[in-house]
Amino acid sequence: MAIKNAFYAQSGGVTAVINASAAGVIEAARNNSDKIGNIYAGRNGIIGALTEDLIDTSEETAEAISALRHTPSGAFGSCRYKLKSVEQNRREYERLIEVFKAHDIGYFFYNGGGDSADTCLKVSQISDTLGYPIQAIHIPKTVDNDLPITDCCPGFGSVAKYIAVSTREASFDVASMAKTSTKVFVLEVMGRHAGWIAAAGGLASSEDCEIPIIILFPEITFDKAKFLTKVDHYVKEYGYCSVVVSEGVKGADGNFLSDQGLRDAFGHAQLGGVAPVVANIIKDGLGLKYHWGVADYLQRAARHVASKTDVQQAYAMGKAAVEYAIAGHNSVMPTIDRQSNSPYRWEVGMAKLSDVANVEKMMPANYISEDGFGITAACREYLAPLIEGEDYPPYKNGLPDYVRLKNMAVTRKLDDFKL
Amino acid sequence: MAIKNAFYAQSGGVTAVINASAAGVIEAARNNSDKIGNIYAGRNGIIGALTEDLIDTSEETAEAISALRHTPSGAFGSCRYKLKSVEQNRREYERLIEVFKAHDIGYFFYNGGGDSADTCLKVSQISDTLGYPIQAIHIPKTVDNDLPITDCCPGFGSVAKYIAVSTREASFDVASMAKTSTKVFVLEVMGRHAGWIAAAGGLASSEDCEIPIIILFPEITFDKAKFLTKVDHYVKEYGYCSVVVSEGVKGADGNFLSDQGLRDAFGHAQLGGVAPVVANIIKDGLGLKYHWGVADYLQRAARHVASKTDVQQAYAMGKAAVEYAIAGHNSVMPTIDRQSNSPYRWEVGMAKLSDVANVEKMMPANYISEDGFGITAACREYLAPLIEGEDYPPYKNGLPDYVRLKNMAVTRKLDDFKL
Repeated sequence: MAIKNAFYAQSGGVTAVINASAAGVIEAARNNSDKIGNIYAGRNGIIGALTEDLIDTSEETAEAISALRHTPSGAFGSCRYKLKSVEQNRREYERLIEVFKAHDIGYFFYNGGGDSADTCLKVSQISDTLGYPIQAIHIPKTVDNDLPITDCCPGFGSVAKYIAVSTREASFDVASMAKTSTKVFVLEVMGRHAGWIAAAGGLASSEDCEIPIIILFPEITFDKAKFLTKVDHYVKEYGYCSVVVSEGVKGADGNFLSDQGLRDAFGHAQLGGVAPVVANIIKDGLGLKYHWGVADYLQRAARHVASKTDVQQAYAMGKAAVEYAIAGHNSVMPTIDRQSNSPYRWEVGMAKLSDVANVEKMMPANYISEDGFGITAACREYLAPLIEGEDYPPYKNGLPDYVRLKNMAVTRKLDDFKL
Repeated sequence: MAIKNAFYAQSGGVTAVINASAAGVIEAARNNSDKIGNIYAGRNGIIGALTEDLIDTSEETAEAISALRHTPSGAFGSCRYKLKSVEQNRREYERLIEVFKAHDIGYFFYNGGGDSADTCLKVSQISDTLGYPIQAIHIPKTVDNDLPITDCCPGFGSVAKYIAVSTREASFDVASMAKTSTKVFVLEVMGRHAGWIAAAGGLASSEDCEIPIIILFPEITFDKAKFLTKVDHYVKEYGYCSVVVSEGVKGADGNFLSDQGLRDAFGHAQLGGVAPVVANIIKDGLGLKYHWGVADYLQRAARHVASKTDVQQAYAMGKAAVEYAIAGHNSVMPTIDRQSNSPYRWEVGMAKLSDVANVEKMMPANYISEDGFGITAACREYLAPLIEGEDYPPYKNGLPDYVRLKNMAVTRKLDDFKL
């Protein structure tokens, strides 16, 4: 078998551990240099392939690649760019083949979420549709935890840990202040369609550390009266409470709760988050003092408090992708298969991309408590192992010592290509 | 000398390390049980003294007190309650004396910021004004870093570390996304009067990890045109940039930039933060995609990423307060005296409360760069040691194992008191 080079790209929103998957790919390929040649990374994802803007990862030292394991974000740059179908945009697929041919690329590793799985599936079919032999393997990554078949998605466990830790810490804070000041803390978290991340806020409360937490899920229509009754109840019982609100929460009118038609003094539309909206509802309805925060990028970039389980799984997915490629697989995705909850055991499995693409995994209904404001024991059992373990990055001068790669460009061989 | 009991209370906004000061007080007192009796903590700060709601810390195990060192927030509850002067509210001081007498309290340890220093000063003068012998020692604490004489304030170093780490992480994220998506990340941080916390965002960029960061200080009047020019310049040069904005930034009209007179669709006033305002200015002025976050309580409660220097100093301040009391001092505050920058060395000093109360330490003008958007080398030299070192809490099931005390009430001996 002739040794072929590989293409690797990061796609969509980045995470605290997507670079750990990159490390898994590159280190596994280096350990199999008799079977896989160079790994060329796409600068800014698939755009790098289309524009022949390839990064030569062989220029990076073993230390630098190893440091990817503890570095958040996308070391080669990511992009939000979805390939259309071959029928709709044959030109892009022909360009990909041109680039693959020019650089002797026989393996396509695509590291992303649902949209990327779809793109990867399309690339995996090039052999059949356009006659170019390529093996395309998708590597799962998404903080939204919404890929099917795999038990969880690398990136989610670390966001979950960040939200659980932050909710616990902020709850301790508001509990201290509640006697004369702030009684409610509202934290806005990611998750436009599914409440996986919001659910993680529920882990902040545990048997040995009970905290009154109200979760507002995107799955549950916001009911103002019911919500205010719950807040009032908790504040009367505990003196304070915390609210974890998903950015995707909608009102009875079907609109996002964050979309309040805000105008400034000049009548200009203003974009706000949902946390201040919820805080205002609490102020107007109950007259309670509040504070609110919006975690935004902090939650998915927080490698400093990453879940060790998540880091290990992200790395394992990258490594497995290479092993599957060497074994001759195409159009598949490595998965995390849960074997048991306690002790938590998981193995690497495999899914067909045709079963993954365009399928969104929602929260099971039995993960949300009866009143719609909390998580059930089943949900806790599912989530708990995913935030297990700490995996601190090295520090230098009080700051995490994250790596920046050289990202040297591979010499171009083709003409320019307009996106 | 007869052994007297001590009163300890936490005041104002809590921090990641104020409980480390509490541990310093209680452990030092326990080590000097031949000189100091019980430590009674005020439940919810000074309110606990006024209402005779005292917590018997002798009921807590050595392990629990030791765990305070790694637990954020105020373990005994804090409050926002400022004593008036003896002339204005003699009744409150007479009540304090009544409570002190009833529980044989001869030492008053007050752990807080500027307002608390003023309260502590007033209590320290009770001996003279009302004839009750008490030694009052103030223990510095404030994330705002605005107490005079002491080189820095316990609580600030950990917030600074959190903001520096978070800004670095979010900047890595936006750099990954910038090619096709988000180009600017805006992070709102605390600091209504002084830009110390915002300045810490500047540490995210270092010689070996350059990041384009724009800081909006409360000390500098917001200049929209100049700001947009700076953002535009950075995005053209680096492809992205991060903005760290202090909640206290004001416009040329003298109003807070966050105060935009926002109205919802029904004309109701809405409270927003300054981060979305700045983000909207970027969108309107430059048409760039942005994300924004508001750290709020997360920043001051983030014990999981506390500065080791800060934890050590917080503990040392509590311990020194007890030693000063035993040595017969009254109306003083232990201070952190910087001996050298590199290597960083500091010693415990002492300030008179009359020199501390009602004095606010602002950022020196030479800490802000010429263009008003960054920190100078002098500022960096000052800040860098304060975020040095990690001091992780223990974890259990993936979450920090923070302690909750029993907080058993001391039996009351007096009649009720109306606040």
